[in-house]
Parts: sequence; C-alpha cells; structure tokens
Amino acid sequence: MSNKPTLNTSLSPALLHLYDLSNSVVVIIDVFRATSTIASALYNGAKCVIPVDSVPKAIEISKSIGGIAAGERDGMIAEGLQHGNSPLEYGREFIENQTLVLTTTNGTRLLQMALDKGADTIISGSFPNLSAVCDYLMAEKKNVVLGCAGWKDRFNLEDTLFAGAVISRLKKDFTIHCDSSLMAESMYSKHKNNLAGFAPKLTHYHRLVERFGLIEDIKFCLTADLANVLPLYKEGKLTTK
Amino acid sequence: MSNKPTLNTSLSPALLHLYDLSNSVVVIIDVFRATSTIASALYNGAKCVIPVDSVPKAIEISKSIGGIAAGERDGMIAEGLQHGNSPLEYGREFIENQTLVLTTTNGTRLLQMALDKGADTIISGSFPNLSAVCDYLMAEKKNVVLGCAGWKDRFNLEDTLFAGAVISRLKKDFTIHCDSSLMAESMYSKHKNNLAGFAPKLTHYHRLVERFGLIEDIKFCLTADLANVLPLYKEGKLTTK
Repeated sequence: MSNKPTLNTSLSPALLHLYDLSNSVVVIIDVFRATSTIASALYNGAKCVIPVDSVPKAIEISKSIGGIAAGERDGMIAEGLQHGNSPLEYGREFIENQTLVLTTTNGTRLLQMALDKGADTIISGSFPNLSAVCDYLMAEKKNVVLGCAGWKDRFNLEDTLFAGAVISRLKKDFTIHCDSSLMAESMYSKHKNNLAGFAPKLTHYHRLVERFGLIEDIKFCLTADLANVLPLYKEGKLTTK
Repeated sequence: MSNKPTLNTSLSPALLHLYDLSNSVVVIIDVFRATSTIASALYNGAKCVIPVDSVPKAIEISKSIGGIAAGERDGMIAEGLQHGNSPLEYGREFIENQTLVLTTTNGTRLLQMALDKGADTIISGSFPNLSAVCDYLMAEKKNVVLGCAGWKDRFNLEDTLFAGAVISRLKKDFTIHCDSSLMAESMYSKHKNNLAGFAPKLTHYHRLVERFGLIEDIKFCLTADLANVLPLYKEGKLTTK
C-alpha cells in the first residue's frame, strides 16, 4: 500500500457526509463567487473574513466589531445589506484593515457543514488563489477532501473545474481512488486553456451574467493566482496563513 | 420559452430529492450491474423482474411465487442466495418464463427511492438497452430525470457515461439546463469509442474485476443494445413494454 495521503472530491454539500473529514484538510470551493471573494478581500489586506450563515447574523456581528457586513442570496446582494459577493468590490482602498462579515447561498453554508462534521483543517480555494492552495496541500501532506459548494446542493461545473485544477497539480503525490476526482481532472484538462470560453455553457453563468451583468466577476473568478493567498479557518475567522 | 420537455441528471441517489419526479419519467441507471442484469433477464424471456430492498424479502417473495431469488451485496452474491447480479447468469435456457426477484446494493434501492418520491413513470436503463430507452423517451415526450445509482451514494463514472449516451441522442428534443448533463455528455463523447478501454480507470472496475474477475460482465455492461428491451416498472414489477 502507498503511504501517500488520500485525495477525494465531494461534488455537492449533500455528499460531504460520505467522506472522513476528521483527518483531512477540507478545501471549500465556491468559485462563483464566495471563495473568490474571500481570496480577494484577504489579498487586498482585510484583517479577516468571518463567514456566517444568515443576514441578521452578518449585521449583528459587523455592528458589534465595526466590520463590513456583506452577502448574497440567489446571486444578488442580500436584502438588508449594502455589500455583496463580488470579488471586485473588495479593492485595497475599501477593505484594507477591515473585517468582512460574509454570508452566501452556498460557500459559507458548506464551510459550516465541514465544521459541524469535525474537519481537521478548513481552507478556502478558488482560481484566484489556486497556487497558494496547492502549495499548502503539498506541504501539509495530510488527506484532502475537495468540497464543491455547488448550487443549492446541485452539482456545478465551475467548482468541479477548480477541483480538477488542484488534482492536476497534486495527483502524483496523493492516492486518488475516486471517480469524482477522475472526472474533475478530465473536465479541467479539456477546458483549462479556455475556461472563459467554456463559461457561457454553465448554468450559473446565465444566472450571473444574463440576469446581473457580472461578466467581469466571471473573468476574475476563472483566472489563476490574481489573489494568491491562503485563507485558513480558525476560531470563526478566515485569515491568511 | 421552449415547449420541449426538460431533461436533468441526478448523479447520486443522495441528490434525487432535488428534482421534481412527479411529472417525469425516471430512468434508473446502475450500469455495473443491476440495470444491465434486468435488461438481460427480460431480453431472455423472464416473465418479470421484481426489485426488492432486502435479501429476506427476495427469499420470501421468490418462495411464495415460485421465482428465482437473486442479489448482490458489495459486488458478491448476497449471503443466503444462490444467484447474483451478473447479466451473464440469466441466459434464455435458465430465465425464460421465470420471475427474477432481485436485490442489489444500489440500483434496486434507487428504484425504491424514486417510487417513494412519487415518480410518474420508472424505467431502467443500461448500455445493453440504450436504444430502447432512447426510443421510449423520444416517444413519450415527458420530462426526464436520469437517475444514476452510484456506489453507496458516491458518484460513479459508468452510470454518468450512460446518462451521457442518452443525452447525446436526445439533446435536440429536450431542454437541458443542468451542469450534470453537460458534464455527462462531455465525458461520454470523450470515451464513447473506447468505453472498455476507459473502464480500468473506474473505481468499480477494480471492485468487480480485480476482486471478482468479472471482466466478461464488464464487457457486456458496456456494449450497446445487446439486450434491447424496455423494462417498465408497474405495480411492483419490471416488465418489457
């Protein structure tokens, strides 16, 4: 038997319970857009990002600590909030030294699930911080579960493509017996040279671009290493390692 | 808006609840091997196949009606049974005019779930009856949910490849907004000319071939139209339409 750590891919939050998280680094993946936004805010100097599961909680916590409440429901800025889930909203001039309190439809919910299921370590991943995620996983040498946030428990391709990007870099150093990972890497290999060209075929693209005009968000979210930091979750906060 | 019926793909039994089954034909897909076995038995003249969820139930029902109890757990003939889940076991000389009472790890369980969730119509699909499934769905013009049985709720590629095969034939006549379906068709297109060559990469292949030597089963299960009948579920039984 190989002594390499294992790597598995969970294609939906509804499948996360199938994997042993207690000895694993869980990578929360919500490409459009929560984990891209988290990378962007931290890259631009945010003190930390506090992920929360409801809008009232985001407002309450941000008030009590003087942070910025932000969030999204169904692709739009959540009712009652002034800031949304766009990575482009969080430039340095706005977010530096601030605390972002963020609630989203899929990504922050998955993070909470991983926590409830006893994950050893939780980090967040997206194309803008692809290299930081891979470098961390290579260095840690622990088992890995790539957790795709999907869309309301449905499979989506953008999170799967990011999982595939990670697998393509790590596969030599991990034991992978998992059809989800095989599929993810295959889909990534096919589209890696033109992710933006493939994007219009994705369900979520239509939600974000046709309904909300967020084409610049999409481009940012599909470009590697534009915000190359490692968001590590500890005691309720995501901070750069 | 298009008046075409919709088509969605559920990649795991744990995702089936996300789809509206009440107005849909649900295709139960368990390529290795339940739905291939069902096609084989009916093609070879079985009166019907009664899918059940436990070994004791298979024994009880088969005794009371003079049928053949068969089943599989974890890839092997289930304890207490003499017949398993191999499509090659059910040749005409053995199964003609018999009733097969079948219990399996994934496929028969998914069928029961679809029934519990109020599916309008349930059929079973596999490569050996690919054309019969596609012809039926084209003729019915109802919404379709392709239900992959997976392996103990995990995603698997062989069921996804069959979903992709169906989609590649039906896509012009259905409305498909579903990343699962897009992925399934893409994976099928990539491997359709050499499914048997791709099979050794699949998790389930190792379970069946390396542990149990079932290479002939695998070949049968990946070949189109070797047992081209349409198993339709009605009042507890699968019979050919």
